[in-house]
Amino acid sequence: MGGFFGAVCRDSCIADVFFGTDYHSHLGTRCGGMAAFGSEIGLQREIHSIANSPFRTKFENIFSEMSGNAAIGCISDTDPQPLLISSHLGCYAICTVGVINNSAELTERCIKNGAHFGAMTSGKINSSELCAALIDEGRDFADGIRKAQEAIDGTCTVLILTEAGELIAARDLKGRLPVHVGRKEGGYCVSFESFAYRKLGYADAGELGPGEIVRLGADGFEQLLPALDEKRVCAFLWSYYGYPTSDYEGINVEMMRCRNGEIIAENDEKTGDAGDIDYVCGVPDSGTPHAIGYANRSHVPFARPFIKYTPTWPRSFMPSSKEERDRVAKMKQIPVKDLIEGKKLLFVDDSIVRGTQLRETVEFLYENGAEEVHMRSACPPIMYACKYLNFSRATGDNDLLSRRVILELEGEEGFSHLDEYSDPSTERGKKMRQAICEKMHFSSLEFQSLEGLVKAIGLDPCKLCTYCWNGKE
Amino acid sequence: MGGFFGAVCRDSCIADVFFGTDYHSHLGTRCGGMAAFGSEIGLQREIHSIANSPFRTKFENIFSEMSGNAAIGCISDTDPQPLLISSHLGCYAICTVGVINNSAELTERCIKNGAHFGAMTSGKINSSELCAALIDEGRDFADGIRKAQEAIDGTCTVLILTEAGELIAARDLKGRLPVHVGRKEGGYCVSFESFAYRKLGYADAGELGPGEIVRLGADGFEQLLPALDEKRVCAFLWSYYGYPTSDYEGINVEMMRCRNGEIIAENDEKTGDAGDIDYVCGVPDSGTPHAIGYANRSHVPFARPFIKYTPTWPRSFMPSSKEERDRVAKMKQIPVKDLIEGKKLLFVDDSIVRGTQLRETVEFLYENGAEEVHMRSACPPIMYACKYLNFSRATGDNDLLSRRVILELEGEEGFSHLDEYSDPSTERGKKMRQAICEKMHFSSLEFQSLEGLVKAIGLDPCKLCTYCWNGKE
Amino acid sequence: MGGFFGAVCRDSCIADVFFGTDYHSHLGTRCGGMAAFGSEIGLQREIHSIANSPFRTKFENIFSEMSGNAAIGCISDTDPQPLLISSHLGCYAICTVGVINNSAELTERCIKNGAHFGAMTSGKINSSELCAALIDEGRDFADGIRKAQEAIDGTCTVLILTEAGELIAARDLKGRLPVHVGRKEGGYCVSFESFAYRKLGYADAGELGPGEIVRLGADGFEQLLPALDEKRVCAFLWSYYGYPTSDYEGINVEMMRCRNGEIIAENDEKTGDAGDIDYVCGVPDSGTPHAIGYANRSHVPFARPFIKYTPTWPRSFMPSSKEERDRVAKMKQIPVKDLIEGKKLLFVDDSIVRGTQLRETVEFLYENGAEEVHMRSACPPIMYACKYLNFSRATGDNDLLSRRVILELEGEEGFSHLDEYSDPSTERGKKMRQAICEKMHFSSLEFQSLEGLVKAIGLDPCKLCTYCWNGKE
Amino acid sequence: MGGFFGAVCRDSCIADVFFGTDYHSHLGTRCGGMAAFGSEIGLQREIHSIANSPFRTKFENIFSEMSGNAAIGCISDTDPQPLLISSHLGCYAICTVGVINNSAELTERCIKNGAHFGAMTSGKINSSELCAALIDEGRDFADGIRKAQEAIDGTCTVLILTEAGELIAARDLKGRLPVHVGRKEGGYCVSFESFAYRKLGYADAGELGPGEIVRLGADGFEQLLPALDEKRVCAFLWSYYGYPTSDYEGINVEMMRCRNGEIIAENDEKTGDAGDIDYVCGVPDSGTPHAIGYANRSHVPFARPFIKYTPTWPRSFMPSSKEERDRVAKMKQIPVKDLIEGKKLLFVDDSIVRGTQLRETVEFLYENGAEEVHMRSACPPIMYACKYLNFSRATGDNDLLSRRVILELEGEEGFSHLDEYSDPSTERGKKMRQAICEKMHFSSLEFQSLEGLVKAIGLDPCKLCTYCWNGKE
Repeated sequence: MGGFFGAVCRDSCIADVFFGTDYHSHLGTRCGGMAAFGSEIGLQREIHSIANSPFRTKFENIFSEMSGNAAIGCISDTDPQPLLISSHLGCYAICTVGVINNSAELTERCIKNGAHFGAMTSGKINSSELCAALIDEGRDFADGIRKAQEAIDGTCTVLILTEAGELIAARDLKGRLPVHVGRKEGGYCVSFESFAYRKLGYADAGELGPGEIVRLGADGFEQLLPALDEKRVCAFLWSYYGYPTSDYEGINVEMMRCRNGEIIAENDEKTGDAGDIDYVCGVPDSGTPHAIGYANRSHVPFARPFIKYTPTWPRSFMPSSKEERDRVAKMKQIPVKDLIEGKKLLFVDDSIVRGTQLRETVEFLYENGAEEVHMRSACPPIMYACKYLNFSRATGDNDLLSRRVILELEGEEGFSHLDEYSDPSTERGKKMRQAICEKMHFSSLEFQSLEGLVKAIGLDPCKLCTYCWNGKE
Repeated sequence: MGGFFGAVCRDSCIADVFFGTDYHSHLGTRCGGMAAFGSEIGLQREIHSIANSPFRTKFENIFSEMSGNAAIGCISDTDPQPLLISSHLGCYAICTVGVINNSAELTERCIKNGAHFGAMTSGKINSSELCAALIDEGRDFADGIRKAQEAIDGTCTVLILTEAGELIAARDLKGRLPVHVGRKEGGYCVSFESFAYRKLGYADAGELGPGEIVRLGADGFEQLLPALDEKRVCAFLWSYYGYPTSDYEGINVEMMRCRNGEIIAENDEKTGDAGDIDYVCGVPDSGTPHAIGYANRSHVPFARPFIKYTPTWPRSFMPSSKEERDRVAKMKQIPVKDLIEGKKLLFVDDSIVRGTQLRETVEFLYENGAEEVHMRSACPPIMYACKYLNFSRATGDNDLLSRRVILELEGEEGFSHLDEYSDPSTERGKKMRQAICEKMHFSSLEFQSLEGLVKAIGLDPCKLCTYCWNGKE
Repeated sequence: MGGFFGAVCRDSCIADVFFGTDYHSHLGTRCGGMAAFGSEIGLQREIHSIANSPFRTKFENIFSEMSGNAAIGCISDTDPQPLLISSHLGCYAICTVGVINNSAELTERCIKNGAHFGAMTSGKINSSELCAALIDEGRDFADGIRKAQEAIDGTCTVLILTEAGELIAARDLKGRLPVHVGRKEGGYCVSFESFAYRKLGYADAGELGPGEIVRLGADGFEQLLPALDEKRVCAFLWSYYGYPTSDYEGINVEMMRCRNGEIIAENDEKTGDAGDIDYVCGVPDSGTPHAIGYANRSHVPFARPFIKYTPTWPRSFMPSSKEERDRVAKMKQIPVKDLIEGKKLLFVDDSIVRGTQLRETVEFLYENGAEEVHMRSACPPIMYACKYLNFSRATGDNDLLSRRVILELEGEEGFSHLDEYSDPSTERGKKMRQAICEKMHFSSLEFQSLEGLVKAIGLDPCKLCTYCWNGKE
Repeated sequence: MGGFFGAVCRDSCIADVFFGTDYHSHLGTRCGGMAAFGSEIGLQREIHSIANSPFRTKFENIFSEMSGNAAIGCISDTDPQPLLISSHLGCYAICTVGVINNSAELTERCIKNGAHFGAMTSGKINSSELCAALIDEGRDFADGIRKAQEAIDGTCTVLILTEAGELIAARDLKGRLPVHVGRKEGGYCVSFESFAYRKLGYADAGELGPGEIVRLGADGFEQLLPALDEKRVCAFLWSYYGYPTSDYEGINVEMMRCRNGEIIAENDEKTGDAGDIDYVCGVPDSGTPHAIGYANRSHVPFARPFIKYTPTWPRSFMPSSKEERDRVAKMKQIPVKDLIEGKKLLFVDDSIVRGTQLRETVEFLYENGAEEVHMRSACPPIMYACKYLNFSRATGDNDLLSRRVILELEGEEGFSHLDEYSDPSTERGKKMRQAICEKMHFSSLEFQSLEGLVKAIGLDPCKLCTYCWNGKE
């Protein structure tokens, strides 16, 4: 994933962009970057790896190293950003969030048109540089961005800082990812997360529509290209990606998760599947509010049978020896024995993709004496690997737990009946759930229904991307 | 506070002590240190500030820098540790946890007896060096430790690594702080936290009694001095200091907190004080399980109306300008508006000491639209500043919120009636609560009773230190 | 200036390129970089600032961070290098040495042809990226390099590492800068400095001719484009840029400087200008061997009246306050009073460009009690600012001390008589020397003649660039 | 060795002590340290390893990290310094230069008297802490320092910064090492090297006599204990340890070395030993001025047949693999072939201790084609290992080249005739020189005579320590 934050103010905006970008740290763990424009120095840029230390630590000297009235920052889970680019559009800084599925083809096309690229280790092309090269094919930024977005197979939101000290922001064509605009006395900002600027004293000034492109200065912002009609917001923003305090399309993540958990509880009550449960628990971190909602509705006590040891695990520490790595992987989860031993536990997880980690968690619970471990997925069975945002990056269709189980149950034929498998009331649906229970040692398993999920979000279903679950593009 | 972990094994113990010490990171934020003994290199030592990066990051090269079969590590909230000391007892590494109230007097005494001290900035004496100097006055380690503990006004647990490659561990004379022993195939360990060694594959091998001193080798451990009779375990270990996964005296922290919350809920139910609440909430982090217990018992929905932005705030980052510092202080708490606006909230906090931060939190809730904010303290009113562990370090008696309010209500005379003030059924008790509500803008306020707290812990009250609440030494 | 070193071997070449590049550290103080190609990892790259720590310190982890059988490294006094570039020529690493005077125009041309550039702070274009973009306009590397060199107004030597694991090296069109090839069992190398590879066990395998382009593999090298006829080696390589151990065109720098000093001494003997000197001294560092030659020939004692304090001054340390900076600037030169006070000193400096620093040195000598300070320039008066290599980077024609003095003597008219001014036997020549002596407080001043300098080098004058002195292109 | 610099001023002295200490960098390569006293903060201290980066780099942030009107700094070749010590003398910072041969015994004594020590890796005691413990046995600083110096077998100069913001400096009892005092408007300083404070604007205010102890404030200094009569200045200060710009006892190092070389040349002229030499050369760095003196007197040309590659070798870089280490050791010396091949070279070295490195240098010269390599030692044959300053630290009597050769010539009996061996006119003297020539492949060998050396220094011989050469204590 990744996220960005930009601001343009009458006064210095370095602090705003430093803190605003830092508030996107939940969206990536690879690189952080900032670029600024000051009328005397021009464009400046700084990028650091945030693999071992958080953005805030790596950029704590930014106040003395960078200055200006306009700046952008980003958290990137892929390539180093923002880049400074010089082209016929002038010199500008750019960062992007999204996925380019056809980058090889686009790179080749640009090279044919006379471009060269700075390369990264092993010759890979930085996807923001590729995006910039595509934008450069346009006659101006708006034209170029739109052309780039159309050429890209995937998703691409863009934030640009020009050498005129202005910001240009573009939401992706389908509005899969959010772009918010904030306003304060003397300045404007652009942000993936709206809570980021609210904490910094900006008020909401609107959310860009799909494909909308705006230019922002310290005194206002103007639309360069209007929004498109069709919208497909990623539903996983609420169930998985977002921070509890995030709002997307005006809908808060924590609230959605609690409602979602309530709906799961109501369903369990109807079916009686959950049986006689001692505690309702969330798989941390995103499963927690789903579980809170479930507990609040069901009146089954909420509990935390294991807790992550967070004080020193802000980053996944990687010892060099394989043995140590495996050890570390298991070291974060600390059990509270009294809440596990001899207990019947119902866990809610945000989703079940490949199931690898969940399986280890369940084993860990049994090892600590759990009597039963019931599982609830806060979303429907994932039947299609995401092609718009690379949700769970290395996952192909055949890595998905649901598909693997279906393949075992009846071979490739099963893939023609994915709808049935999703539906718990069908024979196939029952078989799949049962097979997963056996494979994963769940005492019972149910998935939130698509209707339930959509209801918990509260948006018109046609505005949501639900491709992972029903394959609808 | 602070904590330590030591291990002595047939094989290398560096990884165990590295991870074991890291599991004490919740106990301090100033310094971390490790010392090891290897038969070829002898004693080695490394200390780093952990003010800006966690122990794990600062010591990640320890595997190549240190080696040995015996090692100790510590998280210190006060002075750099462990120290290597050379004296008539030989050369040894030492770390301590506790408080020395009479350090000036003891330093003078040692200097008169011919000692000198390495000094720290501004001439301060390292409290572990002072403790070592006192131990050196004994004829052997056990004799010296006991004498040092008797000379010290305060609390002092000790962990020593000798140049014979053995560990010597001593619990403080009243057993205010825990010292656990763990055992695995081929080694033994000593730890403040028992979950630390359990995660590393050690089994419980006992908890030292008050004043007990043991020597540990790779093949076993022996008692050097037996436990004393009297015990005064710090009750705040459960309500505040401990990690949810911690067990002290065999009693788990998370369980105690949930039980404690349940008792508060029962009491509210009896008195009807809580009224018509929308959500039960915990002041993070230690208030959370108290609130979960309350919610589970009362069936009032549990909710998280604000959430700390943790991905990049592992340490309190300190910008140089005052203005920025104030800004940062408020930046961690992010509201979930839908859970606050127009809502009646009941919050449980682990304790109310000076009330400074709590007041800001409550204001923050009202600013975000809360209709009512009820407060429950998970322990009785704090009437006496801790003199055994410096709970809330800079706090003197007159900084305590309860005392400040009492002083306002009837002057110093009120301090003769502290018992009455603690008791909600007395006139004075009612007045104090009402005065605090006004001062802090609580819609209502109640404290857990001492009986309730003791019941939630489950230990014989005479084994607990309850000095903060009732002044009993 | 700057320099590069590349190697391609059957075994790992990382150590060779690390040490080989390090041996070019006298040529630059800004950036160091290395790129390597390993068949498994592909191309890798690492760049560090060497402004405060030497190359060797900054790249000491390179052995664990980089691997491969082919690698290039460079010391750059301008932009960060080497770059990884991806274009229709494939992916490759490139570094360049030289000067591009028409970079703005070339950048514009490339952008018109569809290129974009990564930009540096303030939007500047990296000159190696610009060179790469020009090379990319060719149909293959040789074609592209030649075209780039022809397009560039200035000087450009190139070293490329391809994704086939081969090196391609090109000397600039006039052969102003050296490119040596070395050979050892199992490998070949390319180097600016020949002593670099000799110390690493390589034997001389030839020096490229002007414009010659070669491709090197582990088993041999082949010419891609033959050498051109015309050669204009920079004479300053011997008198200023080179390390004493450097050989260019087979002629050693230390030897040339000693011979040069001898010729100056002979001339002084003829004219009797030097008078009754106590000591002959060199302005460190490059003036020293000129002075040794002078002393050896004249039998006037050689002495070191001031010595640079080198143990901790490997880099020009820059304190933030102006006052401290001025102080530091003067702190390197430590006087040996007994060798200055009351003494008649004759100093030889490699050249006199603007004279700023030399003036300060002379003042420093008088402050320490010198009776006379005679000055000898190891080369003729500099009448034209270098346009091929930016010798003394910020210097324009009018900053040159000779021109400034001539302007004062007779205005711009004087610039029509530069030849006369150079000649000490003319009236104008005498006046200029006298005027400089007054301005700079020299007791006497003479310049090496062009004939003397050429004789000291020993090359056919038509193969040398003497533009600085006589304006011949 | 090592050195120190302290200053006490009306204004801040941090810059003076930073630069003043830095000017002692030629005296050590292990640790650097600074301590300061400011009336508000009290004593502060900072120590860094300077093994890989120079003092100046490691302490470049000192201006923001330390403040005060009084400060001391040191370069240490042994233990970390300065230490902050708290004892009955108050809190103070201390650094020492010298050698304690009986440290084990003294440590034991202190421990018996009730002291403990902070220990270093492997339990070693920091020699400055030991010295401090001995000083603490006195009733005041002067008394304690004198007692400590008397107890120490070896040499001990001391610099102390008190919590009253004053400096106390003590020269060792025999005055083997220098302690200079400097004065400027508004402050005083103490320094091992006098050029250090002269460059910082201080004027000479005297050199302490043997055993003299002074106290310095911003407005003056007073004698605490007067100088003793006997003086034994280390003669190696001039021939080896000192920087060319150093003055000891008012005699400059560069001047002494040149005079010394002249005397050697005169002697060679008399004996005709040197024969038909092409070049006179110095073994860098300290041999150079000896050789300059020789060349100036003999009119044999001075030359630099090999040159150290200094730009990036400020520290001896230590690769982890043995093979690389050996390679690096040989990589600093770069030959100038034209000055070696077929040449008859006479080298002057400052001294011949074990001869290991010299042998490698001579081999290196022959490998590069030298026809003859004559050797001159700038001091007499070293017959006794230094016990006062550990000149050449790991060297015992039997490691000395002279002794090893004598042992081979006639066994231990030869040690009764060391005087004869020193004398080139005796049979034994001739045999030893011849044997060394054969062993080391010298074409000829001679040593400076003790009389020649003393004459070159110019001090009364009874004020010099000449123990290394004649065993006189």
